[in-house]
Amino acid sequence: MVSPLLNDLYQFSMAYAYWKAGKHKERAVFDLFFRRNPFGGEYTIFGGLDECIRFIANFKIDDEQISFLRSVMPNCENAFFDYLRTIDCCDVEVYAIPEGSVVFPKIPLLRVEGPVAVVQLLETPFVNLVNFASLLTTNAARHRLVAGKSKLLLEFGLRRAQGPDGGISASKYCYMGGFDATSNVAAGRLFGIPLRGTHSHAFVSSFMSMDEIVDKTLKSPDGSRTCEDFVSLVQNWFSKLQWTDKFRGIFGETNQSELAAFISYALVMKSGIPNFCAVALALNDMGYKARGIRLDSGDLAYQSIEGRKIFCEIEKKFSVPDFGKMIITASNDLNEETLDALNKQGHEVDAFGIGTYLLVEISKQPRMKLSEDVSKVSIPCKKQIYRLYGREGYPLVDIMTGVNEPPPKVAERILCRHPFNESKRAYVVPQRIEELLKCYWPGDSHKTREELPSLQKIRERCLLQLSQMRPDHVRRLNPTPYKVSVSAKLYDFIHFLWLSEAPVGELQ
Amino acid sequence: MVSPLLNDLYQFSMAYAYWKAGKHKERAVFDLFFRRNPFGGEYTIFGGLDECIRFIANFKIDDEQISFLRSVMPNCENAFFDYLRTIDCCDVEVYAIPEGSVVFPKIPLLRVEGPVAVVQLLETPFVNLVNFASLLTTNAARHRLVAGKSKLLLEFGLRRAQGPDGGISASKYCYMGGFDATSNVAAGRLFGIPLRGTHSHAFVSSFMSMDEIVDKTLKSPDGSRTCEDFVSLVQNWFSKLQWTDKFRGIFGETNQSELAAFISYALVMKSGIPNFCAVALALNDMGYKARGIRLDSGDLAYQSIEGRKIFCEIEKKFSVPDFGKMIITASNDLNEETLDALNKQGHEVDAFGIGTYLLVEISKQPRMKLSEDVSKVSIPCKKQIYRLYGREGYPLVDIMTGVNEPPPKVAERILCRHPFNESKRAYVVPQRIEELLKCYWPGDSHKTREELPSLQKIRERCLLQLSQMRPDHVRRLNPTPYKVSVSAKLYDFIHFLWLSEAPVGELQ
Repeated sequence: MVSPLLNDLYQFSMAYAYWKAGKHKERAVFDLFFRRNPFGGEYTIFGGLDECIRFIANFKIDDEQISFLRSVMPNCENAFFDYLRTIDCCDVEVYAIPEGSVVFPKIPLLRVEGPVAVVQLLETPFVNLVNFASLLTTNAARHRLVAGKSKLLLEFGLRRAQGPDGGISASKYCYMGGFDATSNVAAGRLFGIPLRGTHSHAFVSSFMSMDEIVDKTLKSPDGSRTCEDFVSLVQNWFSKLQWTDKFRGIFGETNQSELAAFISYALVMKSGIPNFCAVALALNDMGYKARGIRLDSGDLAYQSIEGRKIFCEIEKKFSVPDFGKMIITASNDLNEETLDALNKQGHEVDAFGIGTYLLVEISKQPRMKLSEDVSKVSIPCKKQIYRLYGREGYPLVDIMTGVNEPPPKVAERILCRHPFNESKRAYVVPQRIEELLKCYWPGDSHKTREELPSLQKIRERCLLQLSQMRPDHVRRLNPTPYKVSVSAKLYDFIHFLWLSEAPVGELQ
Repeated sequence: MVSPLLNDLYQFSMAYAYWKAGKHKERAVFDLFFRRNPFGGEYTIFGGLDECIRFIANFKIDDEQISFLRSVMPNCENAFFDYLRTIDCCDVEVYAIPEGSVVFPKIPLLRVEGPVAVVQLLETPFVNLVNFASLLTTNAARHRLVAGKSKLLLEFGLRRAQGPDGGISASKYCYMGGFDATSNVAAGRLFGIPLRGTHSHAFVSSFMSMDEIVDKTLKSPDGSRTCEDFVSLVQNWFSKLQWTDKFRGIFGETNQSELAAFISYALVMKSGIPNFCAVALALNDMGYKARGIRLDSGDLAYQSIEGRKIFCEIEKKFSVPDFGKMIITASNDLNEETLDALNKQGHEVDAFGIGTYLLVEISKQPRMKLSEDVSKVSIPCKKQIYRLYGREGYPLVDIMTGVNEPPPKVAERILCRHPFNESKRAYVVPQRIEELLKCYWPGDSHKTREELPSLQKIRERCLLQLSQMRPDHVRRLNPTPYKVSVSAKLYDFIHFLWLSEAPVGELQ
């Protein structure tokens, strides 16, 4: 899928122009960074690196692709296509922040260096791969933060995804950002993401009566016991529940005084929780454990609380251990905001199934615009990045330096300057320093390179990094911007460059 | 990519439950339809059928997939997996409206019939494939309608797409909906979509001086003449332009009185149009034709008009035929609304490059929710659909009938009823009748089926159908809803079913 042809045509046109001018082998570099955090937040999670590295590792334009390019660029000389056929990424270098890291605007996520014609051909695919992945991962992380650590987050987005691959990517990056499972079987197989599912309303309505259940026997998990008529066992439990004092009005007997208040409520609950309880109790008799219920409409906060009450009452009344801990899943068009609202109301939901809105939110946010500019290699412009940690263990500031500057040292004062605002600067004495850009593709195969970690490891990094942020940076409401700075030397260089390139007005 | 595992886990769980209950071979049917048109419009273009049919044609769960399913459904009996291994879609029937058709809410786009367990496994992939495709195609068609027939529409969405496949699908369905070309080379190769591209700002800035141009010779297209120093030829033209009366202030000499007004304008124009003109004129000397310019920032309406003036002046002054018809492309974050605004202001843009917002608009629109409900085959619920055309050639109304009803006849009065509102009904005397649902997958391979047309043919259908709609249905502002109706018989049946399924309150 991600072939070198997954590219804007003009990248090939420009590669040709470089080649024609004899400039195609000149070294060039581009940084991939963004200007604003998405979702109104003050942080972003970096996703997509693994796919970028796999892309360059396999970068090769085959004969069939060459002949297609030839057909769409009929005015290019043959020798250019001979050149295209030879290129690969063995003389390209990629430095990147580890995938799953918390990252901030202006800081390069990737630094790509190599022959200008080759680097030009990497630009569009990299932007494509990183943009969507980072938005999805960030969105997922935001859901995780608002849901809290103890809740299960399930991704149910396949139906509403932007095509097949959109669905698979959604599952992958939601998991990376802190979701626990997906309903998407293909994503489960490809990435080892845990799978979850329930059943649809259509399934419920496809059974018209108990007579349709042909095989009524149920064996216990260990095979030692057989219930010959599981349907009767369920019906038996249903009667018991009906005659339980606390359940009058919920389990079939209508209760005059509650009728008005419960009409809408009962429409959902009547066909849901009571039948579920009867089946779950019968299963319990046979040594099985029912997993839980899913609420898909109505007032989720209220229903989850009422459901929990019933489960707890059953645990007490019929001495069924853990029946009160039955998992309650909610899945009605949830998003970050509705999760937040549920938290404020109070609820008894254990797991959230999130689908419809997951990908909608993403695309309202084109502002995480990745910027890139292939330009000549200029040493002072090649940057290294350090994250400086304070006394309390929180990261304080990211600082960019030229690659040729000495790195900052622990316990040594360093001046951090705002990249554009002359008056904003601060001395920092870091207690710990993390070098952010690592070499993931060294060009020279003898050099060491960072391992590409598993999806599970990347997910752990993401959750760990989020937990280490100072809470006000990652809170939903009015988060504090995290500081991004440059060294004094880099500041001077940037401003020299800026002045030399800025147009000067002329007054006559 | 689109394997049978691209599915919600619960579809497999339900297939298991059907199998376990011995119901898996019972015939079931589902209609795929939507409830509301997207983008605040009153029409939708149906996309994704081709991919659905290819999906069922290749539907087969292989051994590796079976063993994965076994691992995630450890409690299912072995015989179920043996059954899964055997299934294909040879006993499934798919009727559908031709892809690229203008379609309306409540009308089934596809009717899928087959063994319930198999049909259940088709539901999620079909929704995934049709939802995104139809949104993209509809969005593209809306852009086409607002841009007008004569303008070029270019899709530049790859960088902002939701992953690699999202980009390829965007190119495909934008073309289907009436775009003319894409920048995405892979999509060009896969679907034969015309390719277009320009160059980036980075390319411009990578050349520091004329000295960097090593090879200054240019041959004429037929090879008969050689210009040894094309750079001098361009510089020569630049001087001539500078000394042209009408271009003072634009071509290098600053004009006091215009300075204030043109400061921002000149910043763009100075480095753009004048240099372009000099190169284009030099190319013209050598027998080449320059194609045009791209405006990517600033006031597109104003700049395009000023640019056109310059091109026309050059055509006149230097007698260069067609120089005034130079193609002006605009590409600065365009969407339906900005196109509409440009039209209102007046402009000289010939082509629009649309990228960033193309996919954003899509995902603000989750309301094109596809609905589906696998249920028992019930003859009266299997519907046929007819589009009835009036005297002026416009479609008047779509009518759904039971498949067993006689079809409507030309020039014969038929009662069309609103599906839910008892009082809304009208007699229609159709002048032409189109049967909308065609058989694309007959199950029985001996039966005839509709051909899957090429992307180009589907695009033609889309543009033709749009041009045949009564204009008030497709206009941007306050469009008139198109009428969708049911036959008298189907109305009665629906309401019988409705009453029999609706809960009845009980008062004691």
